[in-house]
Amino acid sequence: MNKINKSFASDNWSGVCPEVVEALLHANTGHVEAYGEENDFYTNKAVEKFKELLGENIRVFFVYNGTAANVLGISHVLRPHQAVVAAKSAHLNEDECGAIERFGSVKILEIETENGKITAEQIQPFLHSFGFQHHVQPRVISISEVTEKGTVYRPEEIKSLADFAHQHNMLLHVDGARIANAAVSLGVGFKELIADAGVDVLSFGGTKNGLMFGEAVVFFNEELANDFQYTRKQGMQLHSKMRFISVQFERYLTDELWKKNAERANRMARLLAERLRQFSAVQITRSTDANGVFAIIPESVIPELQKHYFFHIWDETTGEVRLMCSWDTEPEDIDAFTSVLAHLLPE
Amino acid sequence: MNKINKSFASDNWSGVCPEVVEALLHANTGHVEAYGEENDFYTNKAVEKFKELLGENIRVFFVYNGTAANVLGISHVLRPHQAVVAAKSAHLNEDECGAIERFGSVKILEIETENGKITAEQIQPFLHSFGFQHHVQPRVISISEVTEKGTVYRPEEIKSLADFAHQHNMLLHVDGARIANAAVSLGVGFKELIADAGVDVLSFGGTKNGLMFGEAVVFFNEELANDFQYTRKQGMQLHSKMRFISVQFERYLTDELWKKNAERANRMARLLAERLRQFSAVQITRSTDANGVFAIIPESVIPELQKHYFFHIWDETTGEVRLMCSWDTEPEDIDAFTSVLAHLLPE
Amino acid sequence: MNKINKSFASDNWSGVCPEVVEALLHANTGHVEAYGEENDFYTNKAVEKFKELLGENIRVFFVYNGTAANVLGISHVLRPHQAVVAAKSAHLNEDECGAIERFGSVKILEIETENGKITAEQIQPFLHSFGFQHHVQPRVISISEVTEKGTVYRPEEIKSLADFAHQHNMLLHVDGARIANAAVSLGVGFKELIADAGVDVLSFGGTKNGLMFGEAVVFFNEELANDFQYTRKQGMQLHSKMRFISVQFERYLTDELWKKNAERANRMARLLAERLRQFSAVQITRSTDANGVFAIIPESVIPELQKHYFFHIWDETTGEVRLMCSWDTEPEDIDAFTSVLAHLLPE
Amino acid sequence: MNKINKSFASDNWSGVCPEVVEALLHANTGHVEAYGEENDFYTNKAVEKFKELLGENIRVFFVYNGTAANVLGISHVLRPHQAVVAAKSAHLNEDECGAIERFGSVKILEIETENGKITAEQIQPFLHSFGFQHHVQPRVISISEVTEKGTVYRPEEIKSLADFAHQHNMLLHVDGARIANAAVSLGVGFKELIADAGVDVLSFGGTKNGLMFGEAVVFFNEELANDFQYTRKQGMQLHSKMRFISVQFERYLTDELWKKNAERANRMARLLAERLRQFSAVQITRSTDANGVFAIIPESVIPELQKHYFFHIWDETTGEVRLMCSWDTEPEDIDAFTSVLAHLLPE
Repeated sequence: MNKINKSFASDNWSGVCPEVVEALLHANTGHVEAYGEENDFYTNKAVEKFKELLGENIRVFFVYNGTAANVLGISHVLRPHQAVVAAKSAHLNEDECGAIERFGSVKILEIETENGKITAEQIQPFLHSFGFQHHVQPRVISISEVTEKGTVYRPEEIKSLADFAHQHNMLLHVDGARIANAAVSLGVGFKELIADAGVDVLSFGGTKNGLMFGEAVVFFNEELANDFQYTRKQGMQLHSKMRFISVQFERYLTDELWKKNAERANRMARLLAERLRQFSAVQITRSTDANGVFAIIPESVIPELQKHYFFHIWDETTGEVRLMCSWDTEPEDIDAFTSVLAHLLPE
Repeated sequence: MNKINKSFASDNWSGVCPEVVEALLHANTGHVEAYGEENDFYTNKAVEKFKELLGENIRVFFVYNGTAANVLGISHVLRPHQAVVAAKSAHLNEDECGAIERFGSVKILEIETENGKITAEQIQPFLHSFGFQHHVQPRVISISEVTEKGTVYRPEEIKSLADFAHQHNMLLHVDGARIANAAVSLGVGFKELIADAGVDVLSFGGTKNGLMFGEAVVFFNEELANDFQYTRKQGMQLHSKMRFISVQFERYLTDELWKKNAERANRMARLLAERLRQFSAVQITRSTDANGVFAIIPESVIPELQKHYFFHIWDETTGEVRLMCSWDTEPEDIDAFTSVLAHLLPE
Repeated sequence: MNKINKSFASDNWSGVCPEVVEALLHANTGHVEAYGEENDFYTNKAVEKFKELLGENIRVFFVYNGTAANVLGISHVLRPHQAVVAAKSAHLNEDECGAIERFGSVKILEIETENGKITAEQIQPFLHSFGFQHHVQPRVISISEVTEKGTVYRPEEIKSLADFAHQHNMLLHVDGARIANAAVSLGVGFKELIADAGVDVLSFGGTKNGLMFGEAVVFFNEELANDFQYTRKQGMQLHSKMRFISVQFERYLTDELWKKNAERANRMARLLAERLRQFSAVQITRSTDANGVFAIIPESVIPELQKHYFFHIWDETTGEVRLMCSWDTEPEDIDAFTSVLAHLLPE
Repeated sequence: MNKINKSFASDNWSGVCPEVVEALLHANTGHVEAYGEENDFYTNKAVEKFKELLGENIRVFFVYNGTAANVLGISHVLRPHQAVVAAKSAHLNEDECGAIERFGSVKILEIETENGKITAEQIQPFLHSFGFQHHVQPRVISISEVTEKGTVYRPEEIKSLADFAHQHNMLLHVDGARIANAAVSLGVGFKELIADAGVDVLSFGGTKNGLMFGEAVVFFNEELANDFQYTRKQGMQLHSKMRFISVQFERYLTDELWKKNAERANRMARLLAERLRQFSAVQITRSTDANGVFAIIPESVIPELQKHYFFHIWDETTGEVRLMCSWDTEPEDIDAFTSVLAHLLPE
């Protein structure tokens, strides 16, 4: 049998949640206009759902994955001499193989952080470049919500960055690959967290929380969205059978499915952290804000533990590991994992 | 009810064939390593299927759509000063919104054709540029099989272009968005049509023949494929839940499902052409080699006819229309379409 | 001795005219603010000269060469999904090694022409693409004045193209590598030919008419020029010792030096054409509008003739050659050339 | 009168040294084959000079400026998924307006430094990315000699970085905008400093040391240089009247003109540093290795001092200024500057 134990490697090792599967099957009837054009009922409905949750004055475009949402959403609002400011640890900066440099010819101005979160104060020095022809011109601030270090920006922190951006003729982008986990963690809705805070562009993720494929780029300023259909097509992200992305999002945003899935993942992460704390040899390194647990586990047991439940070493120098929970993680998985760990750890 | 009649607009207005749906459901169990990495059983099996059909010495990479397969497959084997020669009507040239110019910084050297097919003789003049520093250097010849005009290259024609390419230190790429329809039309297998003919890079399509999403880039020379994993990631085409592309292809290439679907589409196109020939007011403009029928229909009836069965006007100047059949087109659809047409046409 | 006879290969085989040399020497005193910044007296004066000749509401930027002027001037006013329409024979399309595709990610929509000139009628078909997300969006029309076939657009032809462009929310760019030769040929000034005709962006050439290096990008709409300083820097075209480009242009535009040089070159071309017409074996193939003579010379004598006076074969298929005159061509050069030709031609 | 005092702003505020002027005038006779093609005597001779100084197995290409030399030289040896590692303070990273990201689609992996110099140890962490498809692949290490902080790598330091690079299948690039100042400072020749140390690609500067325009890209491995002529043309850096760049370099490399000019600039910098040390209110912040003096001058006197002798504030936070000497700086300039400073400083 080829199946493996549920891993803690990433929330994209899991499959598709049953509600989304059902929606996909439901949409698989007859012909539907391709490319999400105006007669595509599913796309229209999915966009309506987004407007219900985020406000009427938005523009929504579906793409295939999170890298595309980030790269296209950001590069669309930039001219090539304009730059994006982001945390060094941002997925955009470190884990997208230079996609934005390739597709958007965009320079990233990076900020070292402790916990993946950046502040207006750290962005300030880049503003000296305004008007100096030898320097790229900072134009977008990009943050991740949840961050790559498992931390979460509070709505007022996002608002503060948005205000700072707008004061300096800049824009705020949010990489929301795990936006549902953040919202659940904070106990707020997407509108409060994103739209009301003044975010300009959002990469709205779904795949990590139970979808098969597809992400959304949301513009909160209709003018910024102008011509994005061409950017998407050039970015090789225009799906012909668009209904199969749209219907997933329609379902995901109905009856708070997104919340149900994210709540499970976050709860399991807290449970896992709780269990790990019971091992004196294990050190929880960061606050478990969302669905990831960061910890230092004795190096000697890691290889054996990974054979049973795969996970990634997050920092080669400190030995910190990342354990991700998913919409389908169950208490039994936590039990089994900690049980293996208990056997491996020296008494 | 939002459903529309089966259209003849494109083979991507149809849904997913039942066998592929079943495969998708089957793969939706437990955790699987993300990104098609070595422990992803589904991806490994799909690649095996490709090797069975196309030969052992190939490298296969899954991407999201056909535009990506073309753009990444071609630009990967080019340096930016090297160019691709293609028919003016090529999808790559006219219907991908400049994606290869954007992502690959690649210039297309275009050839005017009657029927979408290019010949070595037409490529010859571009070879004068070799070694001249003011000109881009032709390096890839790209053809579409089936072409955008509904025609099909015979295996010996492909071989002849491949030989020409290799004699001049060039490579041959095939845009196989409808490769199954071509193979069925010619009564040959993919190996004879593509691998044995000497093709270097193939965009292997599936979405137009019953898949939900996903295409494959196939390299017939392992060296050409080196580092393609990075190009795919930069191209925003690395799917995290890769199994859901792979399992579709695995099924598609099993028990000749590709052939069954393409045969139906091609057969329906021939039936449609046959019926249309019975109208003296309708003129079939091209040979119905695959699953598209090209015809001139009296301009006055087109708007009304499109209300019932949507299709595209292919040439604004001549009024030529394109009618595409799909894996799910049924004789009843042809009957109903021709019946509406009969009512609309003046006696 | 390494010097060769004055050739008829191109007007860039000649050197720098004495007036420009003198200006360069004059500017070589003391320190001057780098990069053409506000205290650079020479750059300020050169810009003033441009305004005198072309009108007050322009923005002028110096770059190193004509390819840069074309590529930067055009790509600056485009978003990447927007395209430029140009003659197939345009320098931009055929002789810049894909620079605009590389730097600007721009697609060129090419038009076949007889004589290097395009008409609004030929551009019309591309307008069908407006609003269609699969197609690049035509945004700039680029013409060459003088064209690569030696022909010249009359002011009313340029105006007509500009009007057409503006009616369709497009812009008109002129590649003026030989703009002085055109103005002289038509007996008009730059203002009448370019500014009054409604041109939006101009590549203003000088190197082919007696300068050492440097071209200018002129915007006739200040808004279009916004941020061009960054595009120039990114384009690796910001000269540190800017005064040495500026002072050349200042002198070139003073006392009609541009006219004197171009008149000589044009006059010599007419003289050459006149002489060639006396050979029954030689056929003048195009009207000698500016400083190039296009002719068919018996193939057998070409190699020997080229040894004495180099020139380029312009069309491999017809054997047409191009003979360029320069600001320094003298009647003696024409005499000597035709004398060698007379000896070579069979009686 | 528009002339200003000799400034200490940058070594590109000065003009052209008399020997180079003479060479330019000498080359301005008759016609010469354009674009540095094989019959261009001046280009051939300049390349010979480079080979005399740097070894026979090199390839030399002239471009217009230093940004182009860096961007083209580096991006030519990279595929787009490969990255360059450089000091954060590198000109390439901070002062070229994102040109390499724009033209080469290249990501820069930046290293924080104290003094502008990087070590193998600092590069080590980036090597973890090898083979990981989500990360760009480090391929070039780029260092500046002289660095942007005025420091100089010793030959053995360069050799050590080259060895490290080659051990890891990487290449070493040197930004030699002030390479002559470094060689003079170290008392070594270019061969010992660069070629023998194992450098792969060199941006060889001249403009900052007495030339009018032009830099050279030197490849120390002929294979790396393959097809660079196309990259140069695409990079808009192929000068038509190439002789006027070449002859400058020919002269610059003859009779050690480069050394004479750099020695003067370096000597003047040392003299300036010596004088500044006599002011107790002024603090020299870095070792004066080449032709730049870095110092902290009381903030209150800077604006007035800049009116007489312009210079740049190098670090807004500390108030550190940079004072550059040039090939034409004279002891009288130093005297005059320090005299003004003495008047301004509080007793």
